[in-house]
Amino acid sequence: MGKKKFVKAITSRDEDFAQWYTDVCLKAELMDYSDAKGFIIYRPYGYALWENMKNYLDAAFKRTGHENVYMPLVIPESLFLKEAEHVEGFAPETAIITMGGNEELQERLIIRPTSEVLFCNHYAKVIESHRDLPKKYNQWCSVVRWEKTTRPFLRGSEFLWQEGHTAHATEQEAREEALNMLDIYQDLGKNLLAIPFITGVKTDKEKFAGAVDTYTIEALMHDNKALQSGTTHYLGTGFAKAFDINFQDKDGELKNVYQTSWGVSTRLIGAVIMVHGDDSGLVLPPYLAPIQVDIIPIMSHVEGVMDKSLEIKESLEKLGIRVKLDDTDKSPGWKFSESEMRGTPLRIEVGPRDLENNQVVVVKRYNREKITYQIDQAISDIPNLLKNIHDAMYENALKNVEENTRVTNDYEEFKQIMQDKSGYVKMMWCGDETCEAQIKEETKATSRCMPFDQSPVGEKCPVCHKEAKHLVYFAKAY
Amino acid sequence: MGKKKFVKAITSRDEDFAQWYTDVCLKAELMDYSDAKGFIIYRPYGYALWENMKNYLDAAFKRTGHENVYMPLVIPESLFLKEAEHVEGFAPETAIITMGGNEELQERLIIRPTSEVLFCNHYAKVIESHRDLPKKYNQWCSVVRWEKTTRPFLRGSEFLWQEGHTAHATEQEAREEALNMLDIYQDLGKNLLAIPFITGVKTDKEKFAGAVDTYTIEALMHDNKALQSGTTHYLGTGFAKAFDINFQDKDGELKNVYQTSWGVSTRLIGAVIMVHGDDSGLVLPPYLAPIQVDIIPIMSHVEGVMDKSLEIKESLEKLGIRVKLDDTDKSPGWKFSESEMRGTPLRIEVGPRDLENNQVVVVKRYNREKITYQIDQAISDIPNLLKNIHDAMYENALKNVEENTRVTNDYEEFKQIMQDKSGYVKMMWCGDETCEAQIKEETKATSRCMPFDQSPVGEKCPVCHKEAKHLVYFAKAY
Repeated sequence: MGKKKFVKAITSRDEDFAQWYTDVCLKAELMDYSDAKGFIIYRPYGYALWENMKNYLDAAFKRTGHENVYMPLVIPESLFLKEAEHVEGFAPETAIITMGGNEELQERLIIRPTSEVLFCNHYAKVIESHRDLPKKYNQWCSVVRWEKTTRPFLRGSEFLWQEGHTAHATEQEAREEALNMLDIYQDLGKNLLAIPFITGVKTDKEKFAGAVDTYTIEALMHDNKALQSGTTHYLGTGFAKAFDINFQDKDGELKNVYQTSWGVSTRLIGAVIMVHGDDSGLVLPPYLAPIQVDIIPIMSHVEGVMDKSLEIKESLEKLGIRVKLDDTDKSPGWKFSESEMRGTPLRIEVGPRDLENNQVVVVKRYNREKITYQIDQAISDIPNLLKNIHDAMYENALKNVEENTRVTNDYEEFKQIMQDKSGYVKMMWCGDETCEAQIKEETKATSRCMPFDQSPVGEKCPVCHKEAKHLVYFAKAY
Repeated sequence: MGKKKFVKAITSRDEDFAQWYTDVCLKAELMDYSDAKGFIIYRPYGYALWENMKNYLDAAFKRTGHENVYMPLVIPESLFLKEAEHVEGFAPETAIITMGGNEELQERLIIRPTSEVLFCNHYAKVIESHRDLPKKYNQWCSVVRWEKTTRPFLRGSEFLWQEGHTAHATEQEAREEALNMLDIYQDLGKNLLAIPFITGVKTDKEKFAGAVDTYTIEALMHDNKALQSGTTHYLGTGFAKAFDINFQDKDGELKNVYQTSWGVSTRLIGAVIMVHGDDSGLVLPPYLAPIQVDIIPIMSHVEGVMDKSLEIKESLEKLGIRVKLDDTDKSPGWKFSESEMRGTPLRIEVGPRDLENNQVVVVKRYNREKITYQIDQAISDIPNLLKNIHDAMYENALKNVEENTRVTNDYEEFKQIMQDKSGYVKMMWCGDETCEAQIKEETKATSRCMPFDQSPVGEKCPVCHKEAKHLVYFAKAY
């Protein structure tokens, strides 16, 4: 045990959460650092998580009539400068190509930090009539934002994401699109990530540069800080005006389109790590896990052990389960630790003594429950076990959100909560950015969103005591 | 017809092949130009072709034990300079980031033109023992190569591709990998693209910068020019030495790994266009086609026409066929033209007169054959029709290769063929780069590959009359 613990031990999550997070990212082999600061390498296991999210979302996008496209990596500087608010938001963090083919470029090229302007420029060319609407495009790509301090998956100079960009004939249709896509993100949390997201509208201060309204999915991490995990934007006609995206409507009039954009990124991998992980490493929700069952033979040299392990593997694969049989020459204890570090939802221990009774031991990763099973029953029961684990992980995460969501009408109490426990605090707000800024200044908490259910919890803004206009979720955030 | 032809007409393929190609790319809505020279927009229909190729290949890669990863977009200049031959090949066509976050960078960042050095740098960190081998990684991404003259899909400053990078304990295993991947590419041609590829080894002059051996798939376009459509490389230990990629072997010795890399790109879209297309536009092989059947109602206002059209659509979808029912208010003739331009393999015309007899007309895009069918029979027969069309398109393309492959031992005849007919010429070669250069200079033909079947067609090199060493396929190429 000594050597194993030495090699595999990671920082305790409650001792130093930031270090624990980095340890898990590296030791579960999700990523590695590259030689270019802020640019990470997505290793096979980390990329497989992204692929599973991508497959889920891509199917959902297509089912709802979206089409994939690919826009250029670069934006000519003059094009980038067309929409003022947007530029103000993104210009400070751009990377710029100034040299190509050994020559200085006549016009500098911005590496896309997001692709609104590229989509807008294209839409201006291809949209002429109401018959061309709606346009519902999405792209899977990487974007570059020059960041001073970076953390794996959470904030990087380059990250992978999808960005949807749509154009509609009416405001109503565009607003519905922005909300529908938020629903798809929320379903992703519920069905795949086992993460309950809080949803709502961003305050003006926190919204996307160029949006009329930004909707968000927010998740609560183990350290009680919130992580903005995805956003959808109703863009109104601001970009359409800047880029002349017009269409001839049924009534013969020339009108601007109404637009949306929306995206989630590899930041979701960070959310999964920090919502579910524990001191032994990653804990993956079953439908997201690249490997759902690790089969670990004990004393594999004993006759029957490897044969039976292989037989179980094949039986499970026939049920559509993703299985790995660890047939390396490492010790079983080492294999257990690796399986735990990588967060495989179930491990099956196949040993000679159990085999005598036609039994195996099945261990759940998330709560370490051990079950001794007749082999046939184990195999037939595993799809159910996976479903139960998913549901339990979701419920646990939801319980954590509920236990760490507090309501107050007293700003002193708010400050105390942010100092002691953090988590979400629901509080009324006057709508004035001064109060929002004061809260951030004094407590480091920011408004995460104004939930759709605006049932008031008080009448006054606890900061300025003026009339309250909005109910807000506040939290310290990544 | 007047207006329709005016809008949709494209240049004839035998009149001006280059213009025909561009017309098809634009009018079939595969792509559009962006404001950044050489960077194209992959529109939904063009991107869907790439997605279908990607799905096919990704499954084949995974089935053969490859894992997907994602490496950074950028390569620090010092890292890029590590392998000399490789640098020499790629440095002249790089795009370089010199500014980030409003500041000049201390070290310039090269946008990846290919990612050998990134994979090598990572492999040097993660490979220690023979237990860590083989490493078989692949990534889907875009790369940037600064090109002076660009053409959609064929040559661009940015293109989409996959790049596989593997590391092995033995030369034999690495060489097998390079050949196995070539087989997968050849199968892609046979099973999805309906393109027969000529395969073989590149001459030293034509091989990849840094490779020991480059294998290639070559396709013959309608204009009788060859298109290099994908390559796999056996890299030997050159990169491993430059990047110190070592492993402790079973015998305890520290050894360099043997490596491969391999890739195909969106250039394959260009191949499909130029092998199968005709004067009415794109002609898509059925398994690649995003839409396999266009259903076009004639006089859709007549009772029963739309209902029956919808019924046929649903029946075909149940069989797993990708169907589009064109229910727009355009004229049937216009819809036919659009369906032809987009190369949909089959169209079904549903008109009131045929419906009286419970019939529909089915038209094959590739040879325009019209079949009048009983509706039920049409539906049950369409999977077969699609298979037959695929096979026929492959056979036609193969016949075209055979008819345009000539053998000669006489250099004067070679020159005449290249002037008159182009196509492939099989000819012996002494192995001397001077002769290869002379051929290119005098005829514009280059060596496409040395086929695996090296059965000699002569004894002397027809250029210098020295002893022949290799059989070579020559052709003018893109």
